[in-house]
Amino acid sequence: MANETGYSVAVLGATGAVGQQILKTLEDKDFPIKELKLLSSKRSAGKQITFKGENYTVEEAKPESFEGVDIGLFSAGGSVSKELAPEAVKRGTIVIDNTSAYRMDENVPLIVPEVNQEALKDHNGIIANPNCSTIQMVAALAPVRDKYGLKKVIVSTYQAVSGAGLSAVEEMKQQSQDILDGKKANPEILPVGGDKKHYQIAFNAIPQIDKFQDNGYTFEEMKMINETKKILEDKDLAVAATCVRLPVETGHSESVYIEVENGSPDVTELQEVLSAGDGITLKDNPAEQEYPMAVDSVGLPDVFVGRIRRDLDNDKGYHMWIVSDNLLKGAAYNTVQIAESLVRLDLIKK
Amino acid sequence: MANETGYSVAVLGATGAVGQQILKTLEDKDFPIKELKLLSSKRSAGKQITFKGENYTVEEAKPESFEGVDIGLFSAGGSVSKELAPEAVKRGTIVIDNTSAYRMDENVPLIVPEVNQEALKDHNGIIANPNCSTIQMVAALAPVRDKYGLKKVIVSTYQAVSGAGLSAVEEMKQQSQDILDGKKANPEILPVGGDKKHYQIAFNAIPQIDKFQDNGYTFEEMKMINETKKILEDKDLAVAATCVRLPVETGHSESVYIEVENGSPDVTELQEVLSAGDGITLKDNPAEQEYPMAVDSVGLPDVFVGRIRRDLDNDKGYHMWIVSDNLLKGAAYNTVQIAESLVRLDLIKK
Repeated sequence: MANETGYSVAVLGATGAVGQQILKTLEDKDFPIKELKLLSSKRSAGKQITFKGENYTVEEAKPESFEGVDIGLFSAGGSVSKELAPEAVKRGTIVIDNTSAYRMDENVPLIVPEVNQEALKDHNGIIANPNCSTIQMVAALAPVRDKYGLKKVIVSTYQAVSGAGLSAVEEMKQQSQDILDGKKANPEILPVGGDKKHYQIAFNAIPQIDKFQDNGYTFEEMKMINETKKILEDKDLAVAATCVRLPVETGHSESVYIEVENGSPDVTELQEVLSAGDGITLKDNPAEQEYPMAVDSVGLPDVFVGRIRRDLDNDKGYHMWIVSDNLLKGAAYNTVQIAESLVRLDLIKK
Repeated sequence: MANETGYSVAVLGATGAVGQQILKTLEDKDFPIKELKLLSSKRSAGKQITFKGENYTVEEAKPESFEGVDIGLFSAGGSVSKELAPEAVKRGTIVIDNTSAYRMDENVPLIVPEVNQEALKDHNGIIANPNCSTIQMVAALAPVRDKYGLKKVIVSTYQAVSGAGLSAVEEMKQQSQDILDGKKANPEILPVGGDKKHYQIAFNAIPQIDKFQDNGYTFEEMKMINETKKILEDKDLAVAATCVRLPVETGHSESVYIEVENGSPDVTELQEVLSAGDGITLKDNPAEQEYPMAVDSVGLPDVFVGRIRRDLDNDKGYHMWIVSDNLLKGAAYNTVQIAESLVRLDLIKK
């Protein structure tokens, strides 16, 4: 489809960490855009952003902003999505929402295109993009599940600060410089902007991402647990998560233990199944010290998998190390992939 | 026992990261020392070190250095221990070895005093101090095992660079500064000094500690697996480990999943069992964002445990977050504790 006959696209949260990556991905993938609107909160309105060599002025997002918009890519926080997504849908926009606002809504498909693109057909105007840490794990687990079934998943995450926004990245850098200069860190944002206490992230590991729930798990951990079951359409899959924030700018890593249901593939077989998986790049050669790492994943859309090895006590148990750019496959790239799937499945009424 | 009637103690590797902490711990605990020898490689010999206000000159370690020495505290690397520990034992010294050289030797007790101090009675001159990441985990698991039995342990570690020595700490700081200055990092040591490839540790997470074994696990992972079984005296305990190096100066963190054998204690009961455990400090109040963190553990001998919660799918499964200063309880402090146990159990022939 040529660009002059493309879609009217609005990016809400265009000035944020994920918004910027959405624009870059739309550019890189040459998504067919007829008209582009860059939207934000009142605070960021008026900023200038260049897209494909053209200058755009960011406008304040209002319900009317979505008149005539085919696809709205939302990443301006959950409360903004709660307010504006229904308004956009009312005006005929299909919203791909990158916040947690609608992910567990049973009327909203939660999509990782390589895994459950077909679920898009049941959409009611809003489509949810899963949490960053969920996307990369589910992308890697799907081909294993397809071949051997999946019984249990236990994940411990190693998550980058850019998942908490650009201000968290700045905080990490400032704290790092302060500590290298022999000064004290001055925590104001992390682990969670809106929470009561703030802790040093530089040269530390914080076992809290998002707020705590009554059951002792954080919301991030519950997202990984519930979203994984929803995307894999398997309520009985046992999923456990411990989510930890690290002083890494971009690139989430995950130490994942799984138990398969059928068979007991050897590592070579599992490596083959994973390398054949959509969007997965195997990087797994211990003899050559080859394994995925956060800094190597930055700017790439792949989900990298390595350190695959069989559990020494359970012949249906395996360990692996999954790494991906949390702003790309974990957010912006998956969002644009969902838009592409909508086009491919001819689900956008014009 | 008064100091004038104390022991002749030699510290081998006195100038290293762990050696320095051993001296500090001997000082803090006022261990009964009659005579102190500071030993090192030829390269570091001649350096001056102050202990309890007195100046000591570091001497090159030779077999004869151990004449008349009651207790030798070794932390100068595995090959040095292999060479000098038998020589020291021949001269009547009891060696407490902080390297991996003798840990899995069936004639050598592997000791975490709170857990298996009694095994010291079978020593044959050499006693091994476990790997740092093992010690803190086993210290936390022991009281749980004592009360409920233990079936399975799956750990993912978040390990500090000081575990790889002072030069690794310097490398991390230099790389951090270079990256903050917009320059490239220049990796020369980590993940493993003697391995083929070196990777950036600043603002990264490296899923390799120590060299890879033929089975795809690193030596560090196999140490955690085998040492845990040996210390807990349970060959059938299922233990799996994924060991990851972080840009943290000091303080190892561990995300640990366990399955107990008997009963299904609620979280409050488990918290009580853990706080009653020797050397354990519970820090577990999600409502107040209280949990252990690496930077808070530095300089303290405690093993901190928090984020205790029941698995949502297995009522015998629990998750917890275990943090300790890898140079203290993980190394120096445990080493000196072993020496104290030898005194307490009257196992040092004079």
